Amino acid sequence: MKAKVFVTFKEGVLDPQGKTIKNAIVSLGYEGVEDVRQGKYFEMTLDTLPKEKAENLIKEIAEKILANPIIEQFQYHIE
Amino acid sequence: MKAKVFVTFKEGVLDPQGKTIKNAIVSLGYEGVEDVRQGKYFEMTLDTLPKEKAENLIKEIAEKILANPIIEQFQYHIE
Repeated sequence: MKAKVFVTFKEGVLDPQGKTIKNAIVSLGYEGVEDVRQGKYFEMTLDTLPKEKAENLIKEIAEKILANPIIEQFQYHIE
Repeated sequence: MKAKVFVTFKEGVLDPQGKTIKNAIVSLGYEGVEDVRQGKYFEMTLDTLPKEKAENLIKEIAEKILANPIIEQFQYHIE
């Protein structure tokens, strides 16, 4: 089983890294990009677990280890 | 339009950050996680472009700016 977790800043939290990347894109002459937000991505290989157990495990790990819930939010997919 | 880009190490490239997170998960007592790989995640807001143009733009930006093609690979979705 694979779990994919995406951690991004909450809306309203400044993202200077994303802004820098946006500026680099513009200064290299690419047109059409309005905004960039950077986040973290985790690919986890899990033992075979019932879907519900896997979801609870991933939620708990994301909340406690992968994301800082004060400024970050996360999404996940389990495959 | 939104584009999501995921950058991960190519297979065979060591990922010490991922390994450290895996060890933290185990030492906190969670069972069922075999492996963790860390990557980067980018959410880009694009001007409205024809799908093909948007794909070419994202591919080029990912190859030239977001990923280091020697050790990293990327995937993207455009919505």
